[in-house]
Amino acid sequence: MVVVMKTSATQAEVDEVVERVREAGGEAFVSPGRSRTIIGLVGDTLQFLEMPLASLPGVEQVIRVGRPYKLVARELHPEPSTVMVGNHPIDRKTVTIIAGPCAVESLEQTMEAARMAKRAGAHLLRGGAYKPRSSPYSFQGLAKEGLEILAACREETGLPVVTEVLEPRDVELVASLADALQIGARNMQNFSLLKEVGKSSTPVILKRGLSATVEEWLMAAEYVAREGNMDIVLCERGIRTFETATRNTLDLAGMAVARDATHLPVIADPSHATGVRELVAPMAKAAVAAGADGIMIEIHPHPSEALSDGPQALTGMDLDRLVEELSALGVALKKPVPGQAKDGKKSGVGWASSR
Amino acid sequence: MVVVMKTSATQAEVDEVVERVREAGGEAFVSPGRSRTIIGLVGDTLQFLEMPLASLPGVEQVIRVGRPYKLVARELHPEPSTVMVGNHPIDRKTVTIIAGPCAVESLEQTMEAARMAKRAGAHLLRGGAYKPRSSPYSFQGLAKEGLEILAACREETGLPVVTEVLEPRDVELVASLADALQIGARNMQNFSLLKEVGKSSTPVILKRGLSATVEEWLMAAEYVAREGNMDIVLCERGIRTFETATRNTLDLAGMAVARDATHLPVIADPSHATGVRELVAPMAKAAVAAGADGIMIEIHPHPSEALSDGPQALTGMDLDRLVEELSALGVALKKPVPGQAKDGKKSGVGWASSR
Amino acid sequence: MVVVMKTSATQAEVDEVVERVREAGGEAFVSPGRSRTIIGLVGDTLQFLEMPLASLPGVEQVIRVGRPYKLVARELHPEPSTVMVGNHPIDRKTVTIIAGPCAVESLEQTMEAARMAKRAGAHLLRGGAYKPRSSPYSFQGLAKEGLEILAACREETGLPVVTEVLEPRDVELVASLADALQIGARNMQNFSLLKEVGKSSTPVILKRGLSATVEEWLMAAEYVAREGNMDIVLCERGIRTFETATRNTLDLAGMAVARDATHLPVIADPSHATGVRELVAPMAKAAVAAGADGIMIEIHPHPSEALSDGPQALTGMDLDRLVEELSALGVALKKPVPGQAKDGKKSGVGWASSR
Amino acid sequence: MVVVMKTSATQAEVDEVVERVREAGGEAFVSPGRSRTIIGLVGDTLQFLEMPLASLPGVEQVIRVGRPYKLVARELHPEPSTVMVGNHPIDRKTVTIIAGPCAVESLEQTMEAARMAKRAGAHLLRGGAYKPRSSPYSFQGLAKEGLEILAACREETGLPVVTEVLEPRDVELVASLADALQIGARNMQNFSLLKEVGKSSTPVILKRGLSATVEEWLMAAEYVAREGNMDIVLCERGIRTFETATRNTLDLAGMAVARDATHLPVIADPSHATGVRELVAPMAKAAVAAGADGIMIEIHPHPSEALSDGPQALTGMDLDRLVEELSALGVALKKPVPGQAKDGKKSGVGWASSR
Repeated sequence: MVVVMKTSATQAEVDEVVERVREAGGEAFVSPGRSRTIIGLVGDTLQFLEMPLASLPGVEQVIRVGRPYKLVARELHPEPSTVMVGNHPIDRKTVTIIAGPCAVESLEQTMEAARMAKRAGAHLLRGGAYKPRSSPYSFQGLAKEGLEILAACREETGLPVVTEVLEPRDVELVASLADALQIGARNMQNFSLLKEVGKSSTPVILKRGLSATVEEWLMAAEYVAREGNMDIVLCERGIRTFETATRNTLDLAGMAVARDATHLPVIADPSHATGVRELVAPMAKAAVAAGADGIMIEIHPHPSEALSDGPQALTGMDLDRLVEELSALGVALKKPVPGQAKDGKKSGVGWASSR
Repeated sequence: MVVVMKTSATQAEVDEVVERVREAGGEAFVSPGRSRTIIGLVGDTLQFLEMPLASLPGVEQVIRVGRPYKLVARELHPEPSTVMVGNHPIDRKTVTIIAGPCAVESLEQTMEAARMAKRAGAHLLRGGAYKPRSSPYSFQGLAKEGLEILAACREETGLPVVTEVLEPRDVELVASLADALQIGARNMQNFSLLKEVGKSSTPVILKRGLSATVEEWLMAAEYVAREGNMDIVLCERGIRTFETATRNTLDLAGMAVARDATHLPVIADPSHATGVRELVAPMAKAAVAAGADGIMIEIHPHPSEALSDGPQALTGMDLDRLVEELSALGVALKKPVPGQAKDGKKSGVGWASSR
Repeated sequence: MVVVMKTSATQAEVDEVVERVREAGGEAFVSPGRSRTIIGLVGDTLQFLEMPLASLPGVEQVIRVGRPYKLVARELHPEPSTVMVGNHPIDRKTVTIIAGPCAVESLEQTMEAARMAKRAGAHLLRGGAYKPRSSPYSFQGLAKEGLEILAACREETGLPVVTEVLEPRDVELVASLADALQIGARNMQNFSLLKEVGKSSTPVILKRGLSATVEEWLMAAEYVAREGNMDIVLCERGIRTFETATRNTLDLAGMAVARDATHLPVIADPSHATGVRELVAPMAKAAVAAGADGIMIEIHPHPSEALSDGPQALTGMDLDRLVEELSALGVALKKPVPGQAKDGKKSGVGWASSR
Repeated sequence: MVVVMKTSATQAEVDEVVERVREAGGEAFVSPGRSRTIIGLVGDTLQFLEMPLASLPGVEQVIRVGRPYKLVARELHPEPSTVMVGNHPIDRKTVTIIAGPCAVESLEQTMEAARMAKRAGAHLLRGGAYKPRSSPYSFQGLAKEGLEILAACREETGLPVVTEVLEPRDVELVASLADALQIGARNMQNFSLLKEVGKSSTPVILKRGLSATVEEWLMAAEYVAREGNMDIVLCERGIRTFETATRNTLDLAGMAVARDATHLPVIADPSHATGVRELVAPMAKAAVAAGADGIMIEIHPHPSEALSDGPQALTGMDLDRLVEELSALGVALKKPVPGQAKDGKKSGVGWASSR
């Protein structure tokens, strides 16, 4: 931490800052500048953060140095983490494919999508049973019934299930039926929910908020970790900017920054990020080239019948081709898509067994 | 609603759109353009919004015309609403002053702030018992004890109490002790919470999300209204932009747009919007000049001891002066601050009785 | 300046930073932190800014402390500046009104607008002879003929003229016919143009760029000042954000920050900021309440015939009313609109003489 | 174009819109909605754009349908364009590598960088002789001397030269010494400059503005094209958002949208987009995976001595490795880096001849 004093600050005001820091068990190094004095603080950053230093008389600015999170930081945990979702490991050496419909609409539609996902070589099935919708007049999801449909699809395809949870009191139920709990972008700073999933032993996929900085995203992960749940996967899904040609702006450099700052796996969701079917494949490939440890893709057996986000859903054939392309890319990048042959073609066993 | 077809769209594709609209009970007017056809839809906008028109073959774009909300829209409810918080009406003819500390830290601190608010002429007391904090290591609020402190302050000063609620299962408790429930910016699209406060009969102060459009903000209000609670006050508190000189960017034009689109009162929070003490007074005055129906201000008896947001808190003297300035402004704008004399000085009765 | 070293930095790397700073004539104070070392630099900030410190091995971050501009900074020039445009002073004690059409379309239209401006009590006439338009197919302005029309309007009404200049080679011509040179938002970092108007002795109205921080805006002013022209007026005109309800987002807090950081007058342009006629008056009032030293308003005798920006132009009656309202506000704020009586009504002399 | 009438619009107001459109030679189709009438316009979009329809009484909104540009649009020019820079073609089938220092500082530094670029397999040399700098106190470039240094480097290495031009009066000189003229982000809407380079026969690399939408970027290209110069390469270089972890936010989806909308080649500049050396390689790879037709990279023989942007410059070894990685990626994507062997290794001839 660095405290910058006003040009008009008195010696007494400088002394008070030093005094406060020492009382709190830290050390303060004073650089008496020509126009303004700078004080470097040495000690526990997290503790200094809680001190109202910026409100002290004579203080112009308090600049934080160092990261405001610990458990998810790479500094104290240099080894990358692997997060097991069902029997599938999400790690930094491979590219995990998560696919499924935006919303669980019916058993038929979800089962059909699950088979599409399985056939294409996806590793996990996604699908929303509880849907956060901007409008109260939009389809709000099938809730518990949707969870049961997902469980039935897992039963048939063997794909572990990822689904969103919207409020603390649902965490137990959702965790009992799903293999990973998704926290959506709008809930990234729903701290009650973060704490609740932090108490669960089910893995968490934490989406970045629409207007969250990378640092705030990691702080949200720290909320989960602090309650004891370290099985966290971060998911970049686009931020809100002035550009309206896409729904959001996929921030792959932000994803790379997060990936560097933490030991957790980081994936990308090109479907929500763009909102445009034609952009899903190029952005999925771009994400993998930028280092993404996985990709989350929306698919639908009949996009023109979808109750939610049809315009961005891929069909089964689109997904087949995309997984093939990602496999080829994975070979070039030495970061394979598990279950795909080294030459970018599907490996026999895993695929045949899914039929 | 307007459906814009691709330049390559076939007649059959145009016909399918028309057919779908008619099946849904609407009418479709086709404008066969030189390069692309446009189809105007006539009927229930909210219904069309749920149709997957954008996913139909040949469709380039679906443009919504008209508002996606009803209950909070001014069109069907031209008379401005008055929201009673305790015995204080928030309406469009006056400027309500809400003041109090960011966080309830102790009985002493909150009572002192409440007296400052009362003395200056504020109408409502604000204070956070449940605090949404970016860091899990920051002070998280006194919870139920905080609510009881606020109730004690109301007891002494007579000021009705506004306080934030963070999760659905706390709504009942908070509503039992507070006069208005605040939904914070980070929870503006916490739809479970919106539905829960919508079922309450306690008024709701709904802050605009950091990256929410005015339309999304009104849709969030529609969630509350749809559950039956029409006592909603909107609060502009700054949006996130690239500018870092202030914490957020206070969007007064957005506030004016919201005020025009709805019948609900709309207020502003210059403290959170700027994060800088020196900017609170100019932005409070600007908000009132732009039409704000109220102002929410953070104060603290000892800002340099504050556990949260000290750098933006006003002292009692700052608040006294600001209320005087707002009163003078209110006179010029013919929108008075209740309880202040017409010449901008405190009116005897209301003020004396508060001692 | 503060140099933050990486946690992995060696003593030799720290020493190199210190050495470099001393070679450059500065002093370096080292705070050897537990996890990372911080080095406070004392000396000439502008000089340090040019050193490639961030590229030195072991350096994580270089944090600038202090302002990167001098001539326009308030610190070394605490007295507010007055800028004379023709015979009208723009200063911090009064509210200057600048009005006129977006584009000079014809003598008739501009003269009519000039009379509207004069009658309402405006002090300066604005109008674009050179128009920067997003599309090459849009009306590009009357160029020199437009300047002559403006001069004719000044001749009749006595109002000094403000007009935009688009490129360095036009500066001399425009300055010969206008009383103030406007630099538009899109040219705020057209450094060749800034240098050229800096060599002129004609006052400059410098609009903030669409995505310029307050600091970049002041740096642009520094470019002008450094060439010798200190007659600069800053103009806030909205920044680009995600919100689409208004054309731009008027950043009044940014304006207030700029006003605090510099000795120059700062005005606001609510017409371009909002792009919506109904929002011009509330935002003009808000700007004045936030401290604006002037307001720039677009008017048109027949908005539905305007070749540019008709939807945001006020009519003569709109302007009359707005000036009255601003005058009343000016009285309440003790910052009058010159030429308007203290009670907010037009003062006889100035107004009658304009007939 | 679609004109949306207010709910309060009268039949006469609808009729006036129809009348105006017909007078202008277009056709108007009226959809008389329940709450509001919609009018579809058929005819020349560019012409309608210039009509002040939004200012007519009763009109709520005018929605443009179709693109506001023609010459650069893919619709009328479906075949992708190839732009020759010197003897190197930039096209959509290959990945062009442009490398060089941010600023030309001296003959030695630039020549060393040029050799690094050549050795690594780059096709074009970049380097700034005229530098647009935020601060007037920063190094402003060597101007003509810098151009001559670049010419000397081309002489030795054979690499064609790309360099920025800052103002209209310099275009002729810069074009006489360079193989491509770069228009920087800050000048993307410097329309005088766009027109001037449009009159030149030298290719133009047009960077996207910091806060420019994809559409505005293409409109800027249309300015160049309309003057006769169709040799335009678009360059995505990051947009300004709230995220501060990177200098800008590289918008690869925006790049892909532009690439779809136009027939021109589109490249990316990961150096300026991120401002962080470690992010340049991942973002270069991501850009190529997203379809970029080329990559522009900053390199410096001694980054810690650089006068500009040292922290983002790659060294020669970094560049060697990056080109190898891009080559491998190009093979997987069937979009090769010219001069590199199909297996991702340098092809003998081109490389050996450069020694």
